[in-house]
Amino acid sequence: MASQRVTSTLRHAKTVFTTAAVPRRPVHLHAVKPACTNAARYLHGQAARRSGAPSNPAIKFPCLDALETRSATLEQQASTRSDKSGPEPSYTVGATQTYRCQDPLLLDHGGQLHEFDIAYETWGQMNAARSNVILLHTGLSASSHAHSTPENPQPGWWEKFIGPGLALDTNKYFVICTNVIGGCYGSTGPSSIDPLDGQRYATRFPILTIQDMVRAQFRLLDHLGVETLHASVGSSMGGMQSLAAGVEFPARVGRIVSISACARSHPYSIAMRYVQRRAILNDPNWNRGFYYGRVPPHVGMKLAREIATITYRSGPEWEQRFGRRRADGSKPPALCPDFLVETYLDHAGEKFCLTYDPNSLLYVSKAMDLFDLGRANQLATAARRAERALLPPSSSPNDPSSSGTCSLTLPDKPYEEQPQQPDPTTPNPTTPNPTTPNPTTPDMNLGTPTPPADLIAGLRVLRSHPVLVLGVASDILFPAWQQREVASALRAAGNARVEHHELSEVQSLFGHDTFLLDVEGVGGQVRGFLG
Amino acid sequence: MASQRVTSTLRHAKTVFTTAAVPRRPVHLHAVKPACTNAARYLHGQAARRSGAPSNPAIKFPCLDALETRSATLEQQASTRSDKSGPEPSYTVGATQTYRCQDPLLLDHGGQLHEFDIAYETWGQMNAARSNVILLHTGLSASSHAHSTPENPQPGWWEKFIGPGLALDTNKYFVICTNVIGGCYGSTGPSSIDPLDGQRYATRFPILTIQDMVRAQFRLLDHLGVETLHASVGSSMGGMQSLAAGVEFPARVGRIVSISACARSHPYSIAMRYVQRRAILNDPNWNRGFYYGRVPPHVGMKLAREIATITYRSGPEWEQRFGRRRADGSKPPALCPDFLVETYLDHAGEKFCLTYDPNSLLYVSKAMDLFDLGRANQLATAARRAERALLPPSSSPNDPSSSGTCSLTLPDKPYEEQPQQPDPTTPNPTTPNPTTPNPTTPDMNLGTPTPPADLIAGLRVLRSHPVLVLGVASDILFPAWQQREVASALRAAGNARVEHHELSEVQSLFGHDTFLLDVEGVGGQVRGFLG
Repeated sequence: MASQRVTSTLRHAKTVFTTAAVPRRPVHLHAVKPACTNAARYLHGQAARRSGAPSNPAIKFPCLDALETRSATLEQQASTRSDKSGPEPSYTVGATQTYRCQDPLLLDHGGQLHEFDIAYETWGQMNAARSNVILLHTGLSASSHAHSTPENPQPGWWEKFIGPGLALDTNKYFVICTNVIGGCYGSTGPSSIDPLDGQRYATRFPILTIQDMVRAQFRLLDHLGVETLHASVGSSMGGMQSLAAGVEFPARVGRIVSISACARSHPYSIAMRYVQRRAILNDPNWNRGFYYGRVPPHVGMKLAREIATITYRSGPEWEQRFGRRRADGSKPPALCPDFLVETYLDHAGEKFCLTYDPNSLLYVSKAMDLFDLGRANQLATAARRAERALLPPSSSPNDPSSSGTCSLTLPDKPYEEQPQQPDPTTPNPTTPNPTTPNPTTPDMNLGTPTPPADLIAGLRVLRSHPVLVLGVASDILFPAWQQREVASALRAAGNARVEHHELSEVQSLFGHDTFLLDVEGVGGQVRGFLG
Repeated sequence: MASQRVTSTLRHAKTVFTTAAVPRRPVHLHAVKPACTNAARYLHGQAARRSGAPSNPAIKFPCLDALETRSATLEQQASTRSDKSGPEPSYTVGATQTYRCQDPLLLDHGGQLHEFDIAYETWGQMNAARSNVILLHTGLSASSHAHSTPENPQPGWWEKFIGPGLALDTNKYFVICTNVIGGCYGSTGPSSIDPLDGQRYATRFPILTIQDMVRAQFRLLDHLGVETLHASVGSSMGGMQSLAAGVEFPARVGRIVSISACARSHPYSIAMRYVQRRAILNDPNWNRGFYYGRVPPHVGMKLAREIATITYRSGPEWEQRFGRRRADGSKPPALCPDFLVETYLDHAGEKFCLTYDPNSLLYVSKAMDLFDLGRANQLATAARRAERALLPPSSSPNDPSSSGTCSLTLPDKPYEEQPQQPDPTTPNPTTPNPTTPNPTTPDMNLGTPTPPADLIAGLRVLRSHPVLVLGVASDILFPAWQQREVASALRAAGNARVEHHELSEVQSLFGHDTFLLDVEGVGGQVRGFLG
């Protein structure tokens, strides 16, 4: 496959370039010295001129050969498999419990799931009063497998944080972890079958919010007879869910732990997730989401994960871990992975690209962008939901008159660059004015942030809840100012039971991934807070 | 085109999904409450169940429609243009002077250019002694058009920094700016014709270094009769070149100005450039570099620029400028650009994707990654060059026995994740140990960095040169610790004439782009230093 491609490329190149003459630009010899008189004559190359052979060999791309080989293998699987389930992987891994809720779920942006599954796993024992339950929320791409179980002995993603005497102490607590809706590890997501027409949702899956995920989780709690959580605990996206659970169901949540998360996504994190989504959308195999049964967009998915991996660690950690070392210093430089940090990203992409559904990444990543616990967003959402609930059945989203979902048309010129610093005497709303900071914008890196009034109002419902907020100074995806913002907004809303801790760069250089790695710095705080 | 695509997608979806039944997982009803008894019944959707229509409408992708339309237009141009020059844009813009050097240039990694062009522009007047010359180096994608000229009145990329009384004072100095080799604005690059076979280089262009670019520039200086520069000045990649010019030609460079640059690329910046290159490599239209005369990889190029744009500004600036505002808050959320920051990135990608040669981006970006002024790299390069210069003509790179360029094969498992903090008692070289920092690694964010001994040795040749080093605290691509490292290494090498300034976040939130925007903070320092 690869050699065919190269051959075809070269043949094409010849066809085109022998006829494509480039006009020679005039050489302006307006200076005194003859050309190149000082130039060292390193080469014996004059003898080779106009030999017909190129000056240099073509670069090889073994990394592209490998991708093409994988595409070909997946395509062959698609054409030969007798069960017609297609070449894409079965994303669900390991044994979970599954709860099917057959009551419809109305979503925040108007979509609906007529029924849905929630895959979940549990550890510890529920007490008779059902008062010792901890709901553990996951990051974007994690499954419910936070810890090994008898049915699935593989280590979970928080293996060292759950167990007797650990951060989530299974001698005391009954821990539940779910796969979020929108995901692909057993809960209903874009790869699931729409019960109304028997086909995969694909990009007919509705836009989700973090709150939608939480509402689905609380259906599971209803099913399990759990009225009140001892605590809602999560990191990263899970830390968003943890706060959202308290805001949506304040009477049903005791304590809240939010680690390396935020109360509203900021534009840098939106930008980093946006380019990941674009990497998937750009892959021709993505086919606007309808790739099930065909070759999945593994190339775009791999790049998306490589970009994500950059945001999960920190520059200083990589400086220490990889520096400028190359995978093989004896080889000439390559455009395929070459520096150690590149092979690290490549490896991260390889591991992920067939184990998570690309459409799930799109929907769950978008839900993170949409996350905003500010009061204005809460009110707008409540108004949308109320309006939707009053509609007659005929106005379902299938109604062509309401099918404008995601048809946003952009302005031709959304932004013009501002070529210089704004004049302090003429404030320009589209550029920052260094001398007069926006009073509703937090002071990002220095001192105590000033949270926006809208966020303080939005978090007022949590003013009596004990909340633990953890941040990590080396986190670039959820920077430490965001956790300071959560803590400050809660305190400004009247909450006197907020604990906020920030791990310094001396304590952790692992950036956003610290919550997966630092058993003592993160786990110890959680254990102390939960009691 | 777009509507055809949608139709075809839906047809495909039907073909596949009606036969792809998903096995229903067993529902474990091991709890006491009946399902969903507490769930609000928002929907009247039961009436719609099994109606045959999907639960939700398909998401629309106007951003993909636009890309497909552009591809189709470019393809049509390819098939109908009579001059056979193909649909790709003519990247060169505006009138420049061009110097053609017909003496071969041996490159640091073994490649060669048998001849090459340098496009350049000048401002001010050279004095009789030719002692007032400033060589201005560009960032990655800039042309030689730093300032308007009579031949090209368009504003240049440093328009407000060049002129009478400005940072580069044309009353005093003769300013030269070139397009780098590897670029596409008039200097020889991958889109140029290889004189040996009359075809475009494409990815038969040799791997470049920053030093190769500088050597080519000094051939131009030879041509112009300039023996010694008053100053070498540059920002970003130009700041790398500025230092490299001093190291390569210490006797020919008077003063050095290096702004928002570094003396060795660090892994985070390599990672960010790597994923940009992957976005291009992944585009099927890239065709391993042989796209001239065909549709160029505009989709991958656009994504590459979107990623790059993230690194050019700062999160805090975007927080102030965009916040969480959406392009049209009245529309439902979209996977195409939706938040203002997404439309900003989209716009940046749109402006760039047909104005710069994707192959140039690959080569010039890679040259930035390879940049390392440490002594070990200088010695290894010198050894390679010496060995190459001694080879007989028959051992040119066209020799199949030496055609291993960029054929690096990766280890199967380059890295295993380290699942937890290393035990301080058992140091692990692949993970940082928070309690015992590597003594040769700079303290990234706090206090004075300790530069590596290798870098101090590598910069010793500059120990007598006046050097101005400028950094910006909000820069995430060339973080401020890198400029501190340059200044500290120079001082440790014995240089007592180093000026180092760092613009705080209060002074500039514009991140890496500050050098293009801050006439006073950046330009003022440069003017003062040059005298």
